[in-house]
Parts: sequence; structure tokens; C-alpha cells
Amino acid sequence: MTVKISQTAELQKFFEEAAGFGNDNGSPRLKQIILRILNDTAKIIEDLEISDDEFWKTVDYLNRLGGRNEAGLLVAGLGVEHFLDLLQDAKDEQLGLTGGTPRTIEGPLYVAGAPICQGETRMDDGSEEGVATTMFLEGQVFDPQGQPLAGAVVDLWHANTQGNYSFFDQSQSEYNLRRRIVTDAEGRYRARSIVPSGYGCSPDGPTQECLDLLGRHGQRPAHIHFFISAPGHRHLTTQINLSGDQYLWDDFAYATRDGLVGEVVFREDGARGVPGRYAELTFDFQLQHAPAPAAEQRSQRPRALQEA
Amino acid sequence: MTVKISQTAELQKFFEEAAGFGNDNGSPRLKQIILRILNDTAKIIEDLEISDDEFWKTVDYLNRLGGRNEAGLLVAGLGVEHFLDLLQDAKDEQLGLTGGTPRTIEGPLYVAGAPICQGETRMDDGSEEGVATTMFLEGQVFDPQGQPLAGAVVDLWHANTQGNYSFFDQSQSEYNLRRRIVTDAEGRYRARSIVPSGYGCSPDGPTQECLDLLGRHGQRPAHIHFFISAPGHRHLTTQINLSGDQYLWDDFAYATRDGLVGEVVFREDGARGVPGRYAELTFDFQLQHAPAPAAEQRSQRPRALQEA
Repeated sequence: MTVKISQTAELQKFFEEAAGFGNDNGSPRLKQIILRILNDTAKIIEDLEISDDEFWKTVDYLNRLGGRNEAGLLVAGLGVEHFLDLLQDAKDEQLGLTGGTPRTIEGPLYVAGAPICQGETRMDDGSEEGVATTMFLEGQVFDPQGQPLAGAVVDLWHANTQGNYSFFDQSQSEYNLRRRIVTDAEGRYRARSIVPSGYGCSPDGPTQECLDLLGRHGQRPAHIHFFISAPGHRHLTTQINLSGDQYLWDDFAYATRDGLVGEVVFREDGARGVPGRYAELTFDFQLQHAPAPAAEQRSQRPRALQEA
Repeated sequence: MTVKISQTAELQKFFEEAAGFGNDNGSPRLKQIILRILNDTAKIIEDLEISDDEFWKTVDYLNRLGGRNEAGLLVAGLGVEHFLDLLQDAKDEQLGLTGGTPRTIEGPLYVAGAPICQGETRMDDGSEEGVATTMFLEGQVFDPQGQPLAGAVVDLWHANTQGNYSFFDQSQSEYNLRRRIVTDAEGRYRARSIVPSGYGCSPDGPTQECLDLLGRHGQRPAHIHFFISAPGHRHLTTQINLSGDQYLWDDFAYATRDGLVGEVVFREDGARGVPGRYAELTFDFQLQHAPAPAAEQRSQRPRALQEA
């Protein structure tokens, strides 16, 4: 038996009241969004005959999800963050805003305010020496005409050998594996760091709980996150995903894209002054022109720390 | 410019993959629900042209909502819990399951395992003496034929004079204003308690933040919650909302319903052995027959404490 009442005049009036259409205060935009969400929620409940138990387990799940601060992880894992990228790509195409390095998801683990340095930096605090493989990462940032962009800010962050990120992993030092590098006269950035491992969802967290019920894993390939910005150019949020990782094209967050695979080359020739095996990774970026000044900035997504 | 891609074959395939349709593990039911939610979410983003900032503020809101354990409060405040009651009423009507005391929302503040007592009890710990007005609450539980139901369990909970509930308000004693009363041979329950005040959402909480943006208050009238159960009878979740309260028909959680208003009578005649002004409230309940054994039980909604 499927009983449906949500689209009756009585219920529509009720949802409008609940969404605040009965008063002139508040935000008209949020009222519109909430009314839509109420209608869609009611239709899901009716169409799929959601039981009381299912509904209340979902409410409990939302409490546990937020209690672990995992809402951003879940929207990545369910592909909604990747969908936003695809939708923006489609909008760009319609506007003729093409070219340059592809965007991909930010993920929930950026921390604002990392140390800023000119041209080159060391990103790791040395705490994983003997465990980690040293990585020499470098590349150039280009403008749409292919000219090197001096003074661009390459804001990058990645995990340690455990797949964990400083700040969220309180055992790491402050801003470990997080830096902002200002490109030199040749548009070049250089970082000495360590080869990251792929991130995995907490096995006991609500995101993994959902993925388990969908028969899915919660692993990402090893990768390096980037915000790249320069005056007059469009902000770029992207990642390098490392070649050779078993999850490269099986990323639970769907962030790997054509044009965003970094080829890691392992050497053992002493040329870089480090003993034994080390890794080299070269990756260049190309920005678009900013169609409007606001496009120079990243989204106002609430992040772990506000920039000073 | 409205660009829509979510209903293309490519995106449909992507959402199916994200919802776990590419594997044979996990829960087919959850896969179905998640696929629907992904589609509806994508359509909301496209139709309402949700900006990146709006999307990420929503994700941050969900984290803060769960961080404060307020998901249950929000679904009450947005009327979804009341909608579930209306939908169940409509289902009942189609099945001919009518009569008895109306149901209304449970709310998120039940705690299982309250002290159980025979026929009568005192619910308050005396900590608000001098501030609170003593309330004598009593009534009978009837079966569908109007016969008194002996041995029914009246599981009731209400707020103190500050509108706060024990357990969630750790300043109150354990199970203050929470009791289970087993009805006597005449189907009667009797409680000495205090007149509760209406509950209000935390002014600094995420539920009130949303209500503010909808131009709505977050107040409830004074009320008393009830679970009533008896073998062979359908579990009843309901409330008495107290007459004379300014929010009686302006309840942010939409719980007040016809047939659920309790008339409080104030007296000052010394007849009950308490000095000064006191309150009397008489309220009877009538249960339905249980259409199936499962109907004797309340929903499996996760609650604050599991029954021992």
C-alpha cells in the first residue's frame, strides 16, 4: 500500500508554513531551498515507503556523522563533490571557459594559513625519516598563453606515510606537509617532501559505515592537493594523483581525472644528496584568465582555520 | 544560465556506481535510497543553482548540527516529524485503523529506563520547590471498547520550570520528571509532579540558527510526553499540550493536535495537602487494538539510553 499526501493542498500549505513563507523575516533564499528539501524529503518517504525505523536511523546517522565532522567526507565519498566539478565543467564549456589544468575536488582536509615561502621549501618535519621516501616535487605554473607565471601562490597539502593529515592527526607537527610556495621568476615551485600514502576513511567512522552498506571501500590513491592562485587568473583547486597506486582509478572520492596523474620516478643515484632511494615528481599547472575578480578566490567553504 | 547534466546517461551511471550498484555486496535497500538521494540532491543543485558557497555552508551546517546532536530537533522544527504522523494517519485511515487518542511526535528527548511504579508516583525530585507549581496529573487508559485497561504502561516525561529535560540537562537528578506508571485495576495512573514550562531550542544551536533564517521562533508550549503500551494494543506515542500557553497553537514542532490539549485547573483550597496554589490535570487515553504484534512496540528509533 502506497499512501501519498505530500502534494495535497493541505500539506503544501504546511510545508510553506514550516519553511517560513508565513512571515516576512529571514532569508527568502533559504526559505526556497528548505521548501524544496521538505517536498523532496516527503516524496522520498512516500515513494520508497521509508519506515519509521529507517527514518530515525537516518536522523541518528546524521547526528553521528556531524559528531565526527564527516559530512564533507561523505559528500566526497558519495560523489557529490565530483558532481559539482562536472557541473562546473559543463557551465564553463557553455561559457567557453576552457583550457588549463583540470579542477578536481578539494576534500575536507585543507587548513588555511600554512607557512609561505619563495620558490622552494621543505614540507616534511623529518619525523618519518627512515620510514618515508624523500620526494622532490617541482613544476611550473603557466598562464593561458603558456607563459610562466611568476608570483603565483601554490598552496599544497598532502598526507604522511600513514595517509594522515597534520592538524586532523594531532600527532603531527603544526602544518607538517602543508606549505604555500610563491613561484619564482620562471613560474617555478620546488618542494622537498615525502611520498604520501593514500588516505582511507576511519574504519569506525560513519562515512565508512555507509560505504560498507553500499559494498564500497573508502580508500584514495596517494595524492597531493593544490590551490593555485595568481592575480588576474582563475583560482584552481586540483590534485596530483600518483601513478602506480592500486586505487589510482578506483578512488572512493572520484578525484582522479585525466590530466591529473603524476608520474613518480624513483631513483637511487645519490644525485639529490639523499642516501638510497628517492622519488622525483614533476608537474606543471596552467591557469585560466579570471572571467571576473571573484573567480580569483577559492570558494568560501568553511575550513579548519581561517587565514590570519 | 541553467546547466543541467544530472539526468544524462553518463551521470546516471556515475550515481549508480557511487550508490554501490556496481557491486553485489552491502544493502540493496540502502543502495536504492542513496541513489534516489543523489539524484534529488543533484536536481536541487541544478534547479536552484546552488552555489559552491551555499553547498559548503550546508555541509558545514550538517557537521555543526550533528556535533550538537540536534538532527532530531531540526526534523521536528521543519515539520518532518509531524508529516510522518499525518502520513501514518492517512495509512491508518486507508486500513480502517481509526479511533483512540491521536498520535503526535515523540521529539528527541526520551530516555529509556525510567523508574517503574504501580498506579501512582511522584515524578519531581523536589529541587524546584518554591519555584514550581505542584501538579496532580491523573487519568485512565481505555481499550477500544471503552473498558479500563489494567496493567498498561504509561511512560511519561516532561520538562522542568526552565523547559529543560533531565539527562540532557545534567544539572537535574537522574530520571527527574521521567516515570513509568503501570495502570491499576481501573486503568488509572496518578502522578504528582510540577507544572512544566515550554521547551525552547538552544538560542546558540544550529536548529535555532536555521529557524532564525526562516523567520521562525523555536518555542514549544508546555507539554507532557507519553508512550502508552499494553499487550494486544497498539503502541501510542503522544503528548498533552497544556491549555493557556501562548505557544499552544504556535508550536515550532507542530505537535499540538485536536484532542491533545490538556485543561490545567489551578486551585488553592488545601484539598491536596499542599500549601498555596496547585494544579490539577486529568487526561484519559484510549488505545487501538494492535493489528499485528509488532504494532505493540514503539519504533526502533535510536534513543538516549537503551532499556536494561
